[in-house]
Amino acid sequence: MKRTLGTCYYPEHWPRTQWPDDARRMADLGLTWVRIGEFAWSLLEPSFGDYRWDWLDRAVDVLTDAGLSVVLGTPSATPPRWMLDRHPDMLAHDIEGRPRGFGSRRHYCFSHDGYRDDAARMAGQMAERYGDRIAAWQIDNEYGCHDTTVSYSPAARDAFRIWLKDRYGTVRNLNDAWGNIFWSMHYDSFDQIGLPNLTVTEPNPAHALAFRRFSSDQVIRWNAAQADAIRAHSDAPVSHNYMGRVTDFDHFETGRQMEIATWDSYPLGFLLDRVPGGDTAAFLRQGDPDFQAFHHDLYRSVGTGRWWIMEQQPGPVNWAPWNPAPLPGMVRLWSWEAFAHGAEAVCWFRWRQFPQAQEQQHAGLLRPDSSEAPGFAEAAQVARELADAPDVVPAQAPVALIFDYVSQWAWEVQPQGVGFDHFTLCFEMYRALRSLGLSVDILPPDTASLDGYALTLVPGLLAIGDPLRAAIDAAEGLVVTGPRTDLKTPELAIPVPMGPDLPGLAAMSTMEETFPPFAERHLWNGGKVTLWLEHLETSAQVVEATTDGVPVLIRSGKRLHLAGWPDLSAARRILRDLAHEAGLDVRDLPDGLRIRDTGNERFVFNYAAEPRSFDDHDLAPAGVLRLTRPS
Amino acid sequence: MKRTLGTCYYPEHWPRTQWPDDARRMADLGLTWVRIGEFAWSLLEPSFGDYRWDWLDRAVDVLTDAGLSVVLGTPSATPPRWMLDRHPDMLAHDIEGRPRGFGSRRHYCFSHDGYRDDAARMAGQMAERYGDRIAAWQIDNEYGCHDTTVSYSPAARDAFRIWLKDRYGTVRNLNDAWGNIFWSMHYDSFDQIGLPNLTVTEPNPAHALAFRRFSSDQVIRWNAAQADAIRAHSDAPVSHNYMGRVTDFDHFETGRQMEIATWDSYPLGFLLDRVPGGDTAAFLRQGDPDFQAFHHDLYRSVGTGRWWIMEQQPGPVNWAPWNPAPLPGMVRLWSWEAFAHGAEAVCWFRWRQFPQAQEQQHAGLLRPDSSEAPGFAEAAQVARELADAPDVVPAQAPVALIFDYVSQWAWEVQPQGVGFDHFTLCFEMYRALRSLGLSVDILPPDTASLDGYALTLVPGLLAIGDPLRAAIDAAEGLVVTGPRTDLKTPELAIPVPMGPDLPGLAAMSTMEETFPPFAERHLWNGGKVTLWLEHLETSAQVVEATTDGVPVLIRSGKRLHLAGWPDLSAARRILRDLAHEAGLDVRDLPDGLRIRDTGNERFVFNYAAEPRSFDDHDLAPAGVLRLTRPS
Amino acid sequence: MKRTLGTCYYPEHWPRTQWPDDARRMADLGLTWVRIGEFAWSLLEPSFGDYRWDWLDRAVDVLTDAGLSVVLGTPSATPPRWMLDRHPDMLAHDIEGRPRGFGSRRHYCFSHDGYRDDAARMAGQMAERYGDRIAAWQIDNEYGCHDTTVSYSPAARDAFRIWLKDRYGTVRNLNDAWGNIFWSMHYDSFDQIGLPNLTVTEPNPAHALAFRRFSSDQVIRWNAAQADAIRAHSDAPVSHNYMGRVTDFDHFETGRQMEIATWDSYPLGFLLDRVPGGDTAAFLRQGDPDFQAFHHDLYRSVGTGRWWIMEQQPGPVNWAPWNPAPLPGMVRLWSWEAFAHGAEAVCWFRWRQFPQAQEQQHAGLLRPDSSEAPGFAEAAQVARELADAPDVVPAQAPVALIFDYVSQWAWEVQPQGVGFDHFTLCFEMYRALRSLGLSVDILPPDTASLDGYALTLVPGLLAIGDPLRAAIDAAEGLVVTGPRTDLKTPELAIPVPMGPDLPGLAAMSTMEETFPPFAERHLWNGGKVTLWLEHLETSAQVVEATTDGVPVLIRSGKRLHLAGWPDLSAARRILRDLAHEAGLDVRDLPDGLRIRDTGNERFVFNYAAEPRSFDDHDLAPAGVLRLTRPS
Ligand SMILES: [Zn+2]
Ligand SMILES: [Zn+2]
Ligand SMILES: [Zn+2]
Repeated sequence: MKRTLGTCYYPEHWPRTQWPDDARRMADLGLTWVRIGEFAWSLLEPSFGDYRWDWLDRAVDVLTDAGLSVVLGTPSATPPRWMLDRHPDMLAHDIEGRPRGFGSRRHYCFSHDGYRDDAARMAGQMAERYGDRIAAWQIDNEYGCHDTTVSYSPAARDAFRIWLKDRYGTVRNLNDAWGNIFWSMHYDSFDQIGLPNLTVTEPNPAHALAFRRFSSDQVIRWNAAQADAIRAHSDAPVSHNYMGRVTDFDHFETGRQMEIATWDSYPLGFLLDRVPGGDTAAFLRQGDPDFQAFHHDLYRSVGTGRWWIMEQQPGPVNWAPWNPAPLPGMVRLWSWEAFAHGAEAVCWFRWRQFPQAQEQQHAGLLRPDSSEAPGFAEAAQVARELADAPDVVPAQAPVALIFDYVSQWAWEVQPQGVGFDHFTLCFEMYRALRSLGLSVDILPPDTASLDGYALTLVPGLLAIGDPLRAAIDAAEGLVVTGPRTDLKTPELAIPVPMGPDLPGLAAMSTMEETFPPFAERHLWNGGKVTLWLEHLETSAQVVEATTDGVPVLIRSGKRLHLAGWPDLSAARRILRDLAHEAGLDVRDLPDGLRIRDTGNERFVFNYAAEPRSFDDHDLAPAGVLRLTRPS
Repeated sequence: MKRTLGTCYYPEHWPRTQWPDDARRMADLGLTWVRIGEFAWSLLEPSFGDYRWDWLDRAVDVLTDAGLSVVLGTPSATPPRWMLDRHPDMLAHDIEGRPRGFGSRRHYCFSHDGYRDDAARMAGQMAERYGDRIAAWQIDNEYGCHDTTVSYSPAARDAFRIWLKDRYGTVRNLNDAWGNIFWSMHYDSFDQIGLPNLTVTEPNPAHALAFRRFSSDQVIRWNAAQADAIRAHSDAPVSHNYMGRVTDFDHFETGRQMEIATWDSYPLGFLLDRVPGGDTAAFLRQGDPDFQAFHHDLYRSVGTGRWWIMEQQPGPVNWAPWNPAPLPGMVRLWSWEAFAHGAEAVCWFRWRQFPQAQEQQHAGLLRPDSSEAPGFAEAAQVARELADAPDVVPAQAPVALIFDYVSQWAWEVQPQGVGFDHFTLCFEMYRALRSLGLSVDILPPDTASLDGYALTLVPGLLAIGDPLRAAIDAAEGLVVTGPRTDLKTPELAIPVPMGPDLPGLAAMSTMEETFPPFAERHLWNGGKVTLWLEHLETSAQVVEATTDGVPVLIRSGKRLHLAGWPDLSAARRILRDLAHEAGLDVRDLPDGLRIRDTGNERFVFNYAAEPRSFDDHDLAPAGVLRLTRPS
Repeated sequence: MKRTLGTCYYPEHWPRTQWPDDARRMADLGLTWVRIGEFAWSLLEPSFGDYRWDWLDRAVDVLTDAGLSVVLGTPSATPPRWMLDRHPDMLAHDIEGRPRGFGSRRHYCFSHDGYRDDAARMAGQMAERYGDRIAAWQIDNEYGCHDTTVSYSPAARDAFRIWLKDRYGTVRNLNDAWGNIFWSMHYDSFDQIGLPNLTVTEPNPAHALAFRRFSSDQVIRWNAAQADAIRAHSDAPVSHNYMGRVTDFDHFETGRQMEIATWDSYPLGFLLDRVPGGDTAAFLRQGDPDFQAFHHDLYRSVGTGRWWIMEQQPGPVNWAPWNPAPLPGMVRLWSWEAFAHGAEAVCWFRWRQFPQAQEQQHAGLLRPDSSEAPGFAEAAQVARELADAPDVVPAQAPVALIFDYVSQWAWEVQPQGVGFDHFTLCFEMYRALRSLGLSVDILPPDTASLDGYALTLVPGLLAIGDPLRAAIDAAEGLVVTGPRTDLKTPELAIPVPMGPDLPGLAAMSTMEETFPPFAERHLWNGGKVTLWLEHLETSAQVVEATTDGVPVLIRSGKRLHLAGWPDLSAARRILRDLAHEAGLDVRDLPDGLRIRDTGNERFVFNYAAEPRSFDDHDLAPAGVLRLTRPS
């Protein structure tokens, strides 16, 4: 399939007279997609029921006349001010119990029925009017951005009680499932159950995890309401634009409701804001060499194969702690990297920098005065290269990594040691694999087959469910579980007998330790275990151990289990050996160099600010190398 | 007296059929005590007035039948959910004014009359039923844990006004005592006085200290209500299990209400959570070498001689920032150290790890699957050793250290320099003494005699009261006051003429300075003064001074006063000289080695992770040496 | 004009019998001014309408009889407790929405009409009674101290809506001015507009800046109410005592309402509390060598020439993180430095240390026992020196620096990079100038003439207004704008075409970058750019550039523009060259040495704790050198 380009456009920011020229310049640049509408509710319906479609009709006409395909966003991320008069209790509440007020965006609680209905009504209205004229849909914008998934509002509390009744049936079941006997925490009725905030000390972790499951389910239910409303009137594919490292709801579940997953990739903003580890100074103007790729691979899975970049950073943004400009060439590199990972389209946010309001310092392809910003030329280069290049051919990667949103919540609720975080653990494993030149597929926790994977990692998984257990059992490749995998029940209790319960590998964790960064434990074979160490009773072979003899990696045939969190050095050593054993093409890549293999090509990207060489090729800073892959 | 062992047991967590086997295993292990009941209110009274004693009757029977003595806890630390329907305003409020809700434990305000009455009622009911069948009582659990002493609730405000009227009689007296003229802070009636939170800038320190005195008094009153209710029906001794470094209420006062003081000793949890100074990395799996001993000595004083460890850490806990496992041998060492300091009993928390709820990752002597956890074998070793060993004979220590809860509050209210903390100052003095091989008694501020003490330290005492003044006057040994001792009135004002008013030592502080850690002042004789320096006008001998000539230690005969806070190096030097002068056996102990002398023995403990030698003895890591003491 | 000395006195703290002796000692010390009354409301009016003037009558008599001139303060900073019964909604609310309660001081909201009226009433009453008997007025005390300018109360919200209507006329204008179209943030009426706190993510910066302008205007309006009430009865000059680095309201505007500006100078308190950069350890007991001088120069401008020190630190204070004593000689140095910068009077806070309440640990000239504190002798020395010395002759400085409160708020609202702060930027420029031996005038942003200035700096100015633009155009000296000057409209939007719009210098910023401290950019000529870099399109000469070629200093004739924030090294190099070109007497002063030139003298101050030499003169630590200046 041919890869495509696009941009995000806000016709409402500019005079109508400018629209045709903008549309023409987009088309001339080689763009084929334009996303519009997602923040325009107050213009589309300035008061309840008073729809004003004329301007949007015109905008869609102008854009489609120029040959562009329109992605239309439903505007529910920015309810107009009058909506609060209609639903005074629609706001989310923060963990301290305070309403999160009007004046920016995402000011709503996912549990508020009235606003959800109004949002679905608006989506339906738009679908009815534009269902045949536009090419794709986007529902809402960046779910979970600004910590908006979890709300402690009265609406959330009421909905949580219903959800609990649905999950547990009786209060007695709930009391048993949560172990409420522990501190006389028994409830007599569902109506007595509150949200797990503002307790004297930590709430019951089972209570907290249930609330996180509920909060995710509310997003899924919310998304379904709009997806249904749209589908009643339109056959165009539906999508949502996810964010980087937002893990508060189960993206795999929303992903199943829509045709396409998109995400908003801000490599420089994320670097300072949410990348675990890494060399911030070295990659300040390039972004972390693994963070974008991780999300590309994750959202490819969320979209069950179909995914886009909906917002690609074209220059400095405004919202990170500091906001540098991309190193020349990076805007191009990021685009090619997305395509190499299978993106169908890359759209830049945004066409032109709006000189007012919150994101006035956020670059676009055009400056506020309509001149070309630095990103424009690189976009043009990508468009030219795309026209000449062979199609990118998707292919299954040789390595699989299981990522699980529920486990993320579980370890947030119960880290047991400061810093234990599922995303960080998975990301560090991913980084180690990538530093060895390997391409990776990221799979959901209910993956039912590992066919074709030479190596599969299952780190930090709360509990291995039946489909995955069967898949591991049947896998022909190597499978490495742990650390902290399958040590809990789905209710965040310790199973008796204790886990992990692994197919083909007899082991039981009898004690778990955590320790601070200044007290890492050395391995006999080099490198260290950080933060986490489970003590295993096992009859399996001990492959790695700490210098004081605690088993760290055990093995039986093609099944291995990690009992500790390896640092990057240990992880690379262990994974290098396993990948080599599995017959994979392993190489120790220099800092900043990364590889992505597709069906017929090998892409090499240089994230470093200095030249790097790869075999007999030289890559300039921000360089992209495209090699034919021997089949 | 023979020393004894025990454990904390939660029969309500396990099927009745398992109880007899558990009891038998406890007895076989050599335990004689078992504490039960303190979190079981919702099972004992599932709704108001509906008592269900049958299960507890049975549990007491099973345990006593196995030869165990039962300590029964009153369950007031975990009021059931229905109690909140009965008393909706019973919750404590945090310093920001928010109720601290249901869902964990300690969700009550000490000032709420209704709940205090219900708690006393429950204690009375239990005493009536079990008064003759059990061996000791525990009231509530860990007062003050999770910052629960101080509450900013409406109930606290109302009670504070009554307390103020009681203390000051008239508002005019209060205005005068507090100096309310300063910023027009006069009150016209007690009903106008609020709690000292959420003021624009710092409240009047006299107001803040009065509130802290009040808050402590509320705990004392609360404890008395249950002690009285129990004593109406039972002659068994009454106790409470205090925590480490909880200083929000006056333990000496509650101590006088009960026969036994117990405390909950978690050496690894505390190390990362609340030990001032020290080498965290070196002692990560052993705990701080002085922190447990300090509390042993403190609670021996609180219990006026009778004290226990009610909860001894047997393995990793769940609540510290990181939770490592004890170094092998430490579970034994901690037990022997407690006995060496005079403990009557050491009880491990807990018998078996409960696999659910908040503390599911907290080890017990048994694993969740009932197998022996690592701590079990060390407990068995202690039991064997105890059977063979001579009794531990209590003896007065040669050195006394005055510790005062009111001074703790005073300097929290008015540190004058970040880091000035009474506990830390006393603990650093204690650490210096212990590093010199000295045994120490910790005494209350109203100590009336210092007979038998060769050396007494009185650091950071708000004001020297009459009994202590007379005791110092009469003391035959050396007495070192200061720094920051007797510079204030009990109302936290500066006396005129200024203090300190010391028997036998003419000195007046004319100015006090504080300074940051990066600006310590050097002493002529080595070491430094940190944080605090009072400028003395004195006719006494200047023994130590800063390099720029400010007196730091002055002396007249056997009375000395410290004008600055010595660092560990200076403190050791000064105290070594004084102890030597006093004829004490002083030695410079290597890191991790500590001594405790009893009436007939010298115990040596090795907290280091490496071997240490003591005279001609070698101590392994976690080693315990027991020498006969020449009489 | 002869310079004078004074002190702050609280007769209400002491028995009447002591007043005459105090007054005599003040006069004997050489003081001529005494400030009284500013915290005494509860004594002057113990209940509403019940005035008690007798004690104040007597105090004024005693003081004036001793030959002292009285500055009388209105007591509105400390409303009595009964005022809250009268106006329960008068309290300010913090950013989290909570009332900031009674119990300290400054417990009122500037937007509360009722309390403003009562405060003006009290000021009028005092003016009526004392208008002829006292020598000067002080309104309130330290506006803005304890973050009290900005309030999120209902009273503030209501007043803000009125202010908005006044500023924008229609909601449509407001929506356009703020760019509310951006995220559907349109308002339909002024009554829908809230305060910009507790929004989901950052509020519209235009909204936030408008609220900051409003908050400043409320202070100005508040001050006017009392100034008017006083002037109805008294011809004595009116003043307010400002604080160090309080920038929440526009002091230039309040300055225009009063005859004299005074400020409260606490060099040691400020050093640890609010001085950006600098060597805290080296100057711990002296204060920052530039911080006091900056404020002297600023408040000389605020007072349009007439300014005092109303509170001068005489010893340790109580409110900084740590509170050391001044190095001997500094109390004298600080006084002479103030005179060298043109102070008419220096008054010490306070006469005698009050041994109770919040500031009991705050030194005075006398100790609590009435003995002389260390500062007393230095005050006496200044008094003697003043008697003998020639008058200080004011003179315009050769260098001007524009400082702007609105820009301070703008960059607080929209830093774009952590640490971008107008005060810090201006202060670092000032420090660089001072380290070169230059004297500086600090001017308001509406300065209409730069006549006589050889060099003018305009750093970080939100937008250049018409008067300043004309002044720059007409200036004969060198003018350096930037960084970040004139890149925004007064509504905090990006102008199109983009700025800066500079007279005589063609440049446009096409992109702005910020970067963290660990990623500074080197200059070809030495030194670095930190935090901020704007990318200029310009036809002007590039004088400085980064090593990767980005212009940092551009020039056309006598107009220069800085595109980046120079570190101290770069700033000194650039300013040294420019000052040299401008014919100024430039010298590289050693650490701690500072110069101030008056009309006929050159003062040299040694802030270092070590001796320093200046030409052939030796200055001891805290030394002051007074040289005749060649005319
Ligand atoms: Zn976005
Ligand atoms: Zn406990
Ligand atoms: Zn002041």
